Amino acid sequence: MQITKPSIPRGTRDFGPDIMAKRNFILDHIKKVFKKYGFLQIETPCMENLQVLTGKYGDEGDQLIYKILNSGNFSENLSQQDWEDGYKKLTAKIAEKALRYDLTVPFARFVAMNRNDITFPFKRFQIQPVWRADRPQKGRYREFFQCDADVVGTHALLCEAEIILMIKEVFENLGISAYCIKINNRKILQGIAEAIGKPGQESVLCVAIDKLDKIGIEGVCNELKEKGYSSSELLLIEPLLKQQGDYPSKIEFLNSFLQNSAIGKEGIAEIEKVWQLTESLSPNFAKLELDLSLARGLSYYTGAIFEVKALNVQMGSISGGGRYDNLTGVFGLPNVPGVGISFGIDRIYDIMEELGLFPNQYLHSSQILVTFMDEKGFNYGLQLAQMLRNAQINTELYPEPSKIKKQFEYAHKKNIPLVAIIGEEEMAENKISVKNMRSGKQIRCTITELISQIDAYENM
Amino acid sequence: MQITKPSIPRGTRDFGPDIMAKRNFILDHIKKVFKKYGFLQIETPCMENLQVLTGKYGDEGDQLIYKILNSGNFSENLSQQDWEDGYKKLTAKIAEKALRYDLTVPFARFVAMNRNDITFPFKRFQIQPVWRADRPQKGRYREFFQCDADVVGTHALLCEAEIILMIKEVFENLGISAYCIKINNRKILQGIAEAIGKPGQESVLCVAIDKLDKIGIEGVCNELKEKGYSSSELLLIEPLLKQQGDYPSKIEFLNSFLQNSAIGKEGIAEIEKVWQLTESLSPNFAKLELDLSLARGLSYYTGAIFEVKALNVQMGSISGGGRYDNLTGVFGLPNVPGVGISFGIDRIYDIMEELGLFPNQYLHSSQILVTFMDEKGFNYGLQLAQMLRNAQINTELYPEPSKIKKQFEYAHKKNIPLVAIIGEEEMAENKISVKNMRSGKQIRCTITELISQIDAYENM
Repeated sequence: MQITKPSIPRGTRDFGPDIMAKRNFILDHIKKVFKKYGFLQIETPCMENLQVLTGKYGDEGDQLIYKILNSGNFSENLSQQDWEDGYKKLTAKIAEKALRYDLTVPFARFVAMNRNDITFPFKRFQIQPVWRADRPQKGRYREFFQCDADVVGTHALLCEAEIILMIKEVFENLGISAYCIKINNRKILQGIAEAIGKPGQESVLCVAIDKLDKIGIEGVCNELKEKGYSSSELLLIEPLLKQQGDYPSKIEFLNSFLQNSAIGKEGIAEIEKVWQLTESLSPNFAKLELDLSLARGLSYYTGAIFEVKALNVQMGSISGGGRYDNLTGVFGLPNVPGVGISFGIDRIYDIMEELGLFPNQYLHSSQILVTFMDEKGFNYGLQLAQMLRNAQINTELYPEPSKIKKQFEYAHKKNIPLVAIIGEEEMAENKISVKNMRSGKQIRCTITELISQIDAYENM
Repeated sequence: MQITKPSIPRGTRDFGPDIMAKRNFILDHIKKVFKKYGFLQIETPCMENLQVLTGKYGDEGDQLIYKILNSGNFSENLSQQDWEDGYKKLTAKIAEKALRYDLTVPFARFVAMNRNDITFPFKRFQIQPVWRADRPQKGRYREFFQCDADVVGTHALLCEAEIILMIKEVFENLGISAYCIKINNRKILQGIAEAIGKPGQESVLCVAIDKLDKIGIEGVCNELKEKGYSSSELLLIEPLLKQQGDYPSKIEFLNSFLQNSAIGKEGIAEIEKVWQLTESLSPNFAKLELDLSLARGLSYYTGAIFEVKALNVQMGSISGGGRYDNLTGVFGLPNVPGVGISFGIDRIYDIMEELGLFPNQYLHSSQILVTFMDEKGFNYGLQLAQMLRNAQINTELYPEPSKIKKQFEYAHKKNIPLVAIIGEEEMAENKISVKNMRSGKQIRCTITELISQIDAYENM
């Protein structure tokens, strides 16, 4: 037999039992909130037809899509010319399928294909891996999960407010209390471009001010200068970049700054409506912040945009999303607007780990390990284990005769909080001894007592 | 904008909200049972290094592995010779990674790589998609899920008995009552090969008798004849193929048939021990059947083998598994025995659908839709929806002013069982009307009553 050296591809990860339990802790909380607001789960295949993905992420994105080699003899019909044409043209001839790059394009494809069966407004969530042939580095993987919720088929701003509430509930339920939800509106950014005499040129502006956090006001101004902004135009933008103060004063600033921009005023009205709906649903919610420098890069957003930042930790945004006008137009189904949010699972995981927010009892699979000394104890343990399981208690019976020390070590390493001990005395009395592995406390009880008191024993 | 025709690759599937809810119903039940017996979840990457997979599934299997084209300029270092060498050699030069073909090899790779961190015996479960470049047909997909549980690092036969109990609990909890667990042991098949004078040649035997269901006794005998079995040898096997009667009579038959085979007698002893442990854990469990013609093809099993058949429906096996001696030897970690079970999710789904076993209340995400007539009703509805959600009730508020008929249609199509109606009278009385969408019954109540009685209203 030839030995293979075991390894995994760079930029991919195994999730062992501990990591998996913690990831599920996060995902279960998020799913529960999604469902509470009426979102339904879907899944799409990991493999998509390459032509479904190509051209949707820009040239750079296309290069990062993993292509799947056609099965069978992929090279049989290729000519000398095909080989010489270079890898880009060649790819299309030897790879029909690819791994999805995100969940948004497959979702749009799903909506377009199932338009007749879907009830609109359609609220869906989707939690699946995506792949990018990016250079791996700390916090950036080639295979990673996205966790998205979108409502499509409605312009209603209630959806924006409900998304804000979902964000609030997710982070509250996870125990992350220091965070801030930044909100802005692309129409405001469009209005600003108009107000400074650059109508229709908000994308340069967006790309630049998106970097405000990283490069500061001076950096943004330098970048805009390079892109052709004059000093007087930059002077007009400065108050925007320096904006401080509370929500009413920002709205006041905008009302005056955008007084001559119809689109800008529409953006202000949308922000105000979302703000009012949020206040109505969750009075005095203090974590929402209007951030006029929020731009969310060059994406397809057309209305509200969101970003969530964790405070007190060094970390980029941990969630983000926004409203778009036309999700499925590229698949031949025009006029499907929507709004969505994406939770950054990996970063949320890192924050929870850093702040010690994973509760211990969620992380063990079995609540109790049944140990024994000999064959007689094993037979007693068999019955006990099954009675515990019949009472819906996650239970393990050590599978083979072993030194008691080894069995305890097993419980300790697997983070099992309780150990049942079966000795001669216990069997004679028809009882068991139960040891709490954390506190070291031990009691003797009947099986009925163990079943009814097990949670108390776990905390004794 | 260029329009892309939306499509998905042959042999792959989208899971829309209804299918997804039903799949989750099955998977949630299975996970619960796995956890009850102390199994911990892991996940491995979908992409593996190609060399980890190659050579593990036979030549035919290797051809069915989906390879991932190297990113960037994959063809730049290829010579004319490489192009002419044919696609098999070429593949290794342009594809370093591949999609996993099953969960077993990645699990073995995981155990070998993490040997120092794993607590043995290691009980893991894993539910993830796998890919095979097979010809798609009814019930056979190119992307499908496997749902596996294995215990590795112990020879203890308790594990076999616990697997039988897990199978029992899964199918009972799902409501599938007509099924049968067939069990056999590879050592018995080895013993039979010895007993008929063909020691070490049990694989021919296994492959042939594995087809008993499909081709009958005559077919099996013909196949064995072709493989060089003489008429007198076939005569010896016949009683085995015709075996009927209960468990004790089969054991009696084996005790006599295998009296001169040490390995055969070991197999009998193992079966008897597993039988006795199962009886001890679950007295009078009548669905276990010793089937001496069960062989499970050419796989790597070395001890117990299992297969679960649904009765009263036309369907192959819906679960299968067995014991193996050497999971990780190929990755340089010898002597890791184990035993595992795999649940056939797609077939279980089909059976549940055919028998109408999916409970309705599991399949709606929201329990209630809040409808309204006008702006005032919307504002009242906002408060109501949030109070319901705060009481952990999955709630939707129709997002925009619409005809009441349209809102009801939405509830109907989304299978939402209750609709809250907010009219002038309701608001004046500080109440709501609640309509049960199935029975058509309607009552008027306070919000407090709705929250405390919602499950009753769902069944009124």
